[in-house]
Amino acid sequence: MRIGVLGTGVVGRTIAGKLRELGHEVLVGSRSAGEDAVPFEKAAAHGELVFNCTNGNSSLEALSAAGEKHLAGKVLVDVANALDFSQGSPPVVGLGEGGSVGELIQREFPEAKVVKALNTVNANVMVDPRVVPGEHDLFISGNDAEAKTRVAGLLQSFGWPADRILDLGDITAARGQEAYVALWVQLMGVVGGATFNIHVVHG
Amino acid sequence: MRIGVLGTGVVGRTIAGKLRELGHEVLVGSRSAGEDAVPFEKAAAHGELVFNCTNGNSSLEALSAAGEKHLAGKVLVDVANALDFSQGSPPVVGLGEGGSVGELIQREFPEAKVVKALNTVNANVMVDPRVVPGEHDLFISGNDAEAKTRVAGLLQSFGWPADRILDLGDITAARGQEAYVALWVQLMGVVGGATFNIHVVHG
Repeated sequence: MRIGVLGTGVVGRTIAGKLRELGHEVLVGSRSAGEDAVPFEKAAAHGELVFNCTNGNSSLEALSAAGEKHLAGKVLVDVANALDFSQGSPPVVGLGEGGSVGELIQREFPEAKVVKALNTVNANVMVDPRVVPGEHDLFISGNDAEAKTRVAGLLQSFGWPADRILDLGDITAARGQEAYVALWVQLMGVVGGATFNIHVVHG
Repeated sequence: MRIGVLGTGVVGRTIAGKLRELGHEVLVGSRSAGEDAVPFEKAAAHGELVFNCTNGNSSLEALSAAGEKHLAGKVLVDVANALDFSQGSPPVVGLGEGGSVGELIQREFPEAKVVKALNTVNANVMVDPRVVPGEHDLFISGNDAEAKTRVAGLLQSFGWPADRILDLGDITAARGQEAYVALWVQLMGVVGGATFNIHVVHG
């Protein structure tokens, strides 16, 4: 598949690498193209499916640069988190208005099929869940059922078992996925690293 | 031990019931005393240790009514969550300022030894973790190490194994504990009930 990955941070590069390994044709987009990245717009236009791996605090700008017409009708996998370290650590997580980056993107780009996914684990876990032993879970949400099915398929190709991909519902559930990251930051201190995840346990 | 439980909701009543079962002398406090509750002040004065089981949006008022002098020097277990359903469901979780109820209480009542705990599970799980099968985790945070040790001991008497009580650090970690509840609300929909918890998995 032709896939556009927006963002050249660790998350964008890790996901792009995995997608290429799986045989997809990937273009990575950045604000200032160069080396192995193209402008946001070119990456988005290239993709049949687009990953948003930009910083959640500037995702709207990045997606505007990518261009609404290059996102319309496409599955947009939103991996972004908005972390504000300006007041020190632990960071303030979220947009401070009770919403989420995922909802905001869906509102601003109504023709994109936004699926929130992968934002609750470190980049190395995203693309190889077996680095964390045993059962552990990934969350997806979005308004378009077919888009979620396609993303779940892609996640399975990353190694996520189908029954460990929990569909939380429509895109408002992105609030929960993004808010959890405030706990994730704390758990990183307890675990002593970022290679961990949570498993939902019930009877 | 003499324990004051502030709040007469399901959480307060469930915790008070468990504490009595364990042989503690418990007084439950409420805004408007009556039936089996006394005024906040009387419950706080009675307790060598105090549980805050009030709604996080009005915890400061409740604790002010309880009286600073009746909290000073005591362990104050803060179980509160601030959920705002005024804009519908899912609720807005937290105080909307990037902080947490736990931090706010510690700031306003500096002589209390605030320990955030139990707010990440349903009341039935709080007092009987075995209702959820297998391994799953509880989080505590607070500035006073000895206070956390005492609370961890009390939690063990509720049935929480010592190695499943994860100390996240000082009270700023309450942000993570409280933010997680936004995900908890979503997971309740997936699980189809409130009797569940998460387990932190790592290598």
